[in-house]
Amino acid sequence: MSEFSPIRIEQPCLVVLDQTLLPHAEKWLELRDLDAICEAIASLRVRGAPLLGIVGAAAMAVAADAGAGETDLRAAAEQIAGTRPTAVELQSGSFGALSVALDAPDSERAGVLWAHAAGYLLRRIEEDRRLGAHGAALLPAGANVLTHCNTGALATGGIGSALGVVRVAWEQGRLARCFATETRPLLQGARLTAWELKQSGIPVTLLPDTAAASLIASGEINAVITGADRIAANGDAANKIGTYGLAVVAARHGVPFYIAAPNSTFDASCPDGTAIPIEHRAASEVGGFGEQRWAPEGIDAYNPAFDVTPAELITAFITETGVIRPPYAGPIG
Amino acid sequence: MSEFSPIRIEQPCLVVLDQTLLPHAEKWLELRDLDAICEAIASLRVRGAPLLGIVGAAAMAVAADAGAGETDLRAAAEQIAGTRPTAVELQSGSFGALSVALDAPDSERAGVLWAHAAGYLLRRIEEDRRLGAHGAALLPAGANVLTHCNTGALATGGIGSALGVVRVAWEQGRLARCFATETRPLLQGARLTAWELKQSGIPVTLLPDTAAASLIASGEINAVITGADRIAANGDAANKIGTYGLAVVAARHGVPFYIAAPNSTFDASCPDGTAIPIEHRAASEVGGFGEQRWAPEGIDAYNPAFDVTPAELITAFITETGVIRPPYAGPIG
Repeated sequence: MSEFSPIRIEQPCLVVLDQTLLPHAEKWLELRDLDAICEAIASLRVRGAPLLGIVGAAAMAVAADAGAGETDLRAAAEQIAGTRPTAVELQSGSFGALSVALDAPDSERAGVLWAHAAGYLLRRIEEDRRLGAHGAALLPAGANVLTHCNTGALATGGIGSALGVVRVAWEQGRLARCFATETRPLLQGARLTAWELKQSGIPVTLLPDTAAASLIASGEINAVITGADRIAANGDAANKIGTYGLAVVAARHGVPFYIAAPNSTFDASCPDGTAIPIEHRAASEVGGFGEQRWAPEGIDAYNPAFDVTPAELITAFITETGVIRPPYAGPIG
Repeated sequence: MSEFSPIRIEQPCLVVLDQTLLPHAEKWLELRDLDAICEAIASLRVRGAPLLGIVGAAAMAVAADAGAGETDLRAAAEQIAGTRPTAVELQSGSFGALSVALDAPDSERAGVLWAHAAGYLLRRIEEDRRLGAHGAALLPAGANVLTHCNTGALATGGIGSALGVVRVAWEQGRLARCFATETRPLLQGARLTAWELKQSGIPVTLLPDTAAASLIASGEINAVITGADRIAANGDAANKIGTYGLAVVAARHGVPFYIAAPNSTFDASCPDGTAIPIEHRAASEVGGFGEQRWAPEGIDAYNPAFDVTPAELITAFITETGVIRPPYAGPIG
């Protein structure tokens, strides 16, 4: 099984696979300045909460390479974190690198930041494997798993979070099939998850987002597993729009609903889901895809990128250090 | 407010608007033989459960015009009803016309069937208005209504079922806005509902199917109203895939979930939802739209066209003869 990663730390460049072109083209982008990196983040050329942590750290290295001093580095961290407000790891990745930079002598900052970013990626790869093993142990033999959006190598840089669980379960012979939602409006499930699983030879069935409730009701699904972009101290979790509806239906049918996410996704400073900022994206993403339009021109749209699943609907969190189940004694993560 | 209809009964033709081309082109098809009508039904050029009843009746007139005798007419009714198995009205429309034909002298069959089909359409127009008034009376002033798929003039031939309620509420000044899901995979909400509402000047906001649960949770929605393709004797209702998930989320948030459907949608011969045949459609409808593909080639897909919402999640049925609420004393409809 190939250990593919969509990111390479190659001083003076951050090299990323342009995920907006998948599955039709595999184009790698050599990003050499902060604005190019922020554009790639905002356009979802690079995406996935854990991967954005690495990107945030690498972006600080790029800024330092360009000669940014302390003031510029602080501004760079703000700029990076503000590009997509929901993913906590973009924030912790950039501000974590800022702390590292401020602890280093001026002359060594760039080198220290490149090493920090490379170490971040290596740690992600190792931690994803551990997370996957903890999650796979929760599944029965011959499991059918339903997932949403993309949480694979493309989203983390390692083997993935929810899709890392799927991959380890497959390697262990526990997985029968992974069911992947299309994930409108940006179709990360159809474009990215289906592509990753097919590349890896893992059986995958794609479904419209509308068909998920019917599939869960059919009794065919043993577990729903998604990632998260930010998890509050009380266990409420923000993830790709559509996650909340899956959790509500899973609960009705007694199907376990797991969130697989590295510890870095937990944000103890957010008391609950209402404190998680939710990114709203352009109306133009609804009613069409790419160049194709299927809705009348100029239609209003409701297009939040994320929703919040309350802790009570989450059976357990799967992290690199183990499985966390309620009741939570205090802030989790 | 225009009283648009997507169908015209013009002996020797059934004339329908090709709904697969909306909203980009308005092309009318003159259908002159049974196979052409069945192709239009199977391809969803003409669709919507109540409208399919009229199409079924008109298709029998076309067959009689071509000189079909009793045996051929029986075969024609079977062929029509089998084209899409879930919509009960396609079945009752064609078999109802067969009964009318068998009661008429041979020489008068074609004429009687054309008159029957024309009468069916006129009755639909009148009954939709009554259904709309019964439904509008359920809404509070300034209501925001969430709907799914297309249930307007394009789906019934009159002003629509769920969208007829929206239209009457708008005429009465009760409606603030209609929220319409895109309705993957065939995007009837984005293509048809958004187009109909925009043409009529009714405020409409389009959303990805994934965003419906978040919207309901926001507290902005006063009622979810959909149509149905077949309603069993116990109140279980089959409707466009995705309806069930909306009903589950609406129930969790205490938002009324109404099904607006003419009495002809009730099928007393189906004891409950498990007896409703569910059409599964081609995998090629998932992972792309029209000529555009966004999933890898050759991917497996789960693509049922309908799901079943259990009676317990349906606040009430809105019909042309009034509002039906549980508990149901016996078979409903």
